Amino acid sequence: MTLDAVLARIDATLPQSLDRLMDLLRIPSISTDPAYAADCARAAEWLVADLQTLGFDARVAVTPGHPMVVGHGGDGARHLLFYGHYDVQPVDPLELWDTPPFQPELQDTPKGQVIRARGSSDDKGQLMTFIEACRAWKAVHGTLPGKLTIFLEGEEESSSPSLVPFMQANRAELTADLALICDTGLYEDKTPAISSMLRGMAKAEFTIRAASRDLHSGMYGGLAQNPLHLMSSLLAGLHDDQGRVTVPGFYDDVDELSDTLRSQWQSLAFDHAAYLGDVGLSVPSGEQDRTPLEMIWSRPTAEVNGMWGGYNGAGFKTVLPGEAHAKVSFRLVSRQDPAKVLTAFRAWADSRMPADCEIIWHDAIEGSPASIMDITDPAFEAARQALSDEWGRPAAFIGEGGSIPIAGHFKTVLGMNAMLIGFSKDDDKIHSPNEKYDLESFHKGIRSWARILARIA
Amino acid sequence: MTLDAVLARIDATLPQSLDRLMDLLRIPSISTDPAYAADCARAAEWLVADLQTLGFDARVAVTPGHPMVVGHGGDGARHLLFYGHYDVQPVDPLELWDTPPFQPELQDTPKGQVIRARGSSDDKGQLMTFIEACRAWKAVHGTLPGKLTIFLEGEEESSSPSLVPFMQANRAELTADLALICDTGLYEDKTPAISSMLRGMAKAEFTIRAASRDLHSGMYGGLAQNPLHLMSSLLAGLHDDQGRVTVPGFYDDVDELSDTLRSQWQSLAFDHAAYLGDVGLSVPSGEQDRTPLEMIWSRPTAEVNGMWGGYNGAGFKTVLPGEAHAKVSFRLVSRQDPAKVLTAFRAWADSRMPADCEIIWHDAIEGSPASIMDITDPAFEAARQALSDEWGRPAAFIGEGGSIPIAGHFKTVLGMNAMLIGFSKDDDKIHSPNEKYDLESFHKGIRSWARILARIA
Repeated sequence: MTLDAVLARIDATLPQSLDRLMDLLRIPSISTDPAYAADCARAAEWLVADLQTLGFDARVAVTPGHPMVVGHGGDGARHLLFYGHYDVQPVDPLELWDTPPFQPELQDTPKGQVIRARGSSDDKGQLMTFIEACRAWKAVHGTLPGKLTIFLEGEEESSSPSLVPFMQANRAELTADLALICDTGLYEDKTPAISSMLRGMAKAEFTIRAASRDLHSGMYGGLAQNPLHLMSSLLAGLHDDQGRVTVPGFYDDVDELSDTLRSQWQSLAFDHAAYLGDVGLSVPSGEQDRTPLEMIWSRPTAEVNGMWGGYNGAGFKTVLPGEAHAKVSFRLVSRQDPAKVLTAFRAWADSRMPADCEIIWHDAIEGSPASIMDITDPAFEAARQALSDEWGRPAAFIGEGGSIPIAGHFKTVLGMNAMLIGFSKDDDKIHSPNEKYDLESFHKGIRSWARILARIA
Repeated sequence: MTLDAVLARIDATLPQSLDRLMDLLRIPSISTDPAYAADCARAAEWLVADLQTLGFDARVAVTPGHPMVVGHGGDGARHLLFYGHYDVQPVDPLELWDTPPFQPELQDTPKGQVIRARGSSDDKGQLMTFIEACRAWKAVHGTLPGKLTIFLEGEEESSSPSLVPFMQANRAELTADLALICDTGLYEDKTPAISSMLRGMAKAEFTIRAASRDLHSGMYGGLAQNPLHLMSSLLAGLHDDQGRVTVPGFYDDVDELSDTLRSQWQSLAFDHAAYLGDVGLSVPSGEQDRTPLEMIWSRPTAEVNGMWGGYNGAGFKTVLPGEAHAKVSFRLVSRQDPAKVLTAFRAWADSRMPADCEIIWHDAIEGSPASIMDITDPAFEAARQALSDEWGRPAAFIGEGGSIPIAGHFKTVLGMNAMLIGFSKDDDKIHSPNEKYDLESFHKGIRSWARILARIA
C-alpha cells in the first residue's frame, strides 16, 4: 500500500517536519504592525523556497500590502487549491507569555507534547501539515499527490485588504476545482470535522433621535419622550418570548437542517452545559425549540453588540437625552439575503417610532450571506472517510457560528466550493498569550492530509 | 393707605434700587471656581453692609466654603426667614455674551427693558426684590415690615456643601415660622405663582452581569444570554403601554390632586404643544390618562438617564458583552418614600433576571421625598391674593417638576414650611450666556413682596 508508505515516511521524518515548522515560527510575521513588514516578506520568501524544494513553481506575489505566496505543481484529474496564512496576531501583552512568542519550544504538558509559539496553531502549524504531507508523498512517489495550487496570504489577521483584488486580478491562475482551507479546528478537541456551513452577517448601526437637545428630567420627565425608553422597547421587541426574531419575514429563507446533518449533529452529543459553563452561564437563551448546536450553527440570530445613550459618567445627571444609539448584528444562514434582512429590520424599527421621533441609519445596507458548502460533491464524503480512518472516530460535517470570509470569497469571486478542515483545539489560545499547537494535531494533521489527498486528488 | 405709600416709594426710588443691584452684579461671585473666592466674600460683605443700613443685625458667617449672610431685624407676630443666594454660575462660553457678564446694563428690547448680567435673574435680582421691599417699607414706616431673618448663601450653584451643616449648627437662630424663598419663576412668563409641590428623587445605578467575559457572537450568539437584551427587556418593562410604571406598589403612596389645585391648574391652560415644540417634540409620552401638567408636576416618573454596554467605537465588534449598565432615576410625589421605591424596584428587577445572570447595585438606597407645602397655612392664601393684586391676574399654586433641595432642608432640618415665590421668566437664560432679568420682574417683584409682607408679617 503506497499510502501506508507515505504515512510511515511521515512518522519517520516527524522531527525534520517539526524543525521546519520551528524555523517558520521564528519569523515574527505580525501583519497588523508595519514594523514587521520585512518579517512578513521573509516568511513569504521562506515558504516559496520551501515549496520550490518540493518542485512547486512558486513565487512571492507583490500586493499593496503583504505579499501572497502562490505555487503550482503536480498533475491529476482534480485541481485542488490549498489556502492558509503565514501572518500572525500581535503578541501583546508580552509579559503574559511564559516563553518568548517567537522562540518556539516543544514542551511536555499533562495532556501531551505541544509546540509553543505565536502562530503555532493560527496558522503556520496548520498550513505546514499540508506542505509536509506533500513532502512525504513526493519522497515516496517522486511526484506531488495531484494537481495542486498553494495559495498563502499574509494579511488574514489584518482583514485581508489585498485578498479579493488579488483574486480578481489572478482569477484564471487561482481557480481550481475545489479549495482546501486549513484554518479551523477539531470538534471539541477530539472529533475530526469538516466545516460545511458558515453563518453570514449583516450589521446595522443607528441612532434614535427624540428631543432637539438634552432635557432636564425635572422639567420634562414624564411628559417628553425618552429615546432610551424607545431604544429599550425596540430592542426588547426584537425577540419574542420564545427567543425568535420578530422582524417580519426574517425566517422566510431559512432552511431546516437535513436529516443527515441532524443525525450527525445529534451523535456529536454537544455538551452545551460545559460550553456555557466555560463562560459562567448555564441557561441557553435562544430559540427555545432548537438544540444548542442548531442555535450556534444553523439558526440565524439578532444580537445587540452595543447600546449607549445619556449620561454614563460618575454620579448622576438626571437628563433625558436627545439621542440613543445601538449596534445590532445578524448572523445569517441558508438563503438569507443581507440586504433583504436589513431592509426588513429598518422598516420594522422605523414603524415603531412615535410621530415626533426618528431613526437615523448610519451604514449602507450590505453584508455577507451564509456559506453553504456543497457536500454532495463526493470529495466531501471521501475526505470525511479519510479523517475518520486517521482519528479513529467518525468525522462530522459541522457548522461554524462565525463567518470565515475566505470561504465566501472563493465562492463569490472564483466560483469554487471550499472544504474547511483543521486540527486546532479549543485550548490552543489563538490570538492570546502562550498560543500552542498540539504535536498530535501537527502529526495527525499531516497524516490526515496524506489520507485525504490519496482519496480525492 | 400705608401700603400705597410703600408702593409709591418703590416706584419713585426704582432708579436707586436698580443702581444698588448693578453694584452687586458687578461682583463676579462665581462659587464653583476657587479663583473667585475673594469675590464671593466681597458679595457677602456688600450684602451685610446693605442690610445694616436697613437696621438688620447682619453678619458674614464663615463656613468651610463660601460665607453665609445672616441678618435679623424687625418685630412682628410671625417670624419670617427669607432665603436667596448671592453666588452665580460660571460665564463660559464667554464669547457668546453680547455684553460683558459682570458689566450690567439696562437694555431696551422689543419686550421691554431688561437688566443684562450674570446673576441678574439667578439669584441676585430676585433676592434684591425682597431687600428693596424692606427698604421702601422702612422709609415709609421707620421700621421693618415684621420680624425678619435674612439668610443668603454663596454655594447654591455648587451643590451647597456647607448648607445643611450650617443649618444644623445654627438651628435656633435660623428657625422661623415660615421660610420665603425667592429663586423660582412666574408661570409662563405672566402669571404669578407659588410653588407648593416639588417632586422628590430616588436614583439607581446598576450592572447586569451575564457571561464572565465578552463573547464572540459567532461562537455564542443565539445560545448565550446577551445582557444588552436583558437590559432592554428590563427597561422596556418599566412602563406599561399606558405609560404607567410597572414596579409593584409604585403608586401606593401617590395622592390624587385636590379639586382646588386641579381647577387652578386647568385654568392655567398649559400649552403643552408649545412646551414640547420648543424641544422638537409633539407627542406627550407619559401616563396617557393624565394631563401634561400633572405629568410634570404631580405624577411620579421613572426615567432612564443613561444606558450603556458592549462596543460603541467606530465600526463593528460583533461581541456579546459580559455586562450592561444603566442609571435610572425616579421623580417622587406625595408620600412616596425613596427607600421603599428603590427596594421595590430592586426586587422587581432582580426577579426578572435568568438564573445565570445577576444585577449588581451600585448605590445606597437613599433619596429625597417630595416637598409638599402646607397651603392650608393662611399665609399661602394671603400671599396668593397679594400676588394677584399686583399682577392683575389670579396667582396659582403650581408644582415644580424638579427638586429644589433648599425647601426640603428647611422642612427636614428646621421643621419649617416654605413658600417659594419668584419672578424670573422662561427666557431669562439662567446658567447661559446673556442672562437677563426683566425690569418688570424686578419692579413688580419688589412691589409684590411689599404687598405680601403687608398681609402676612
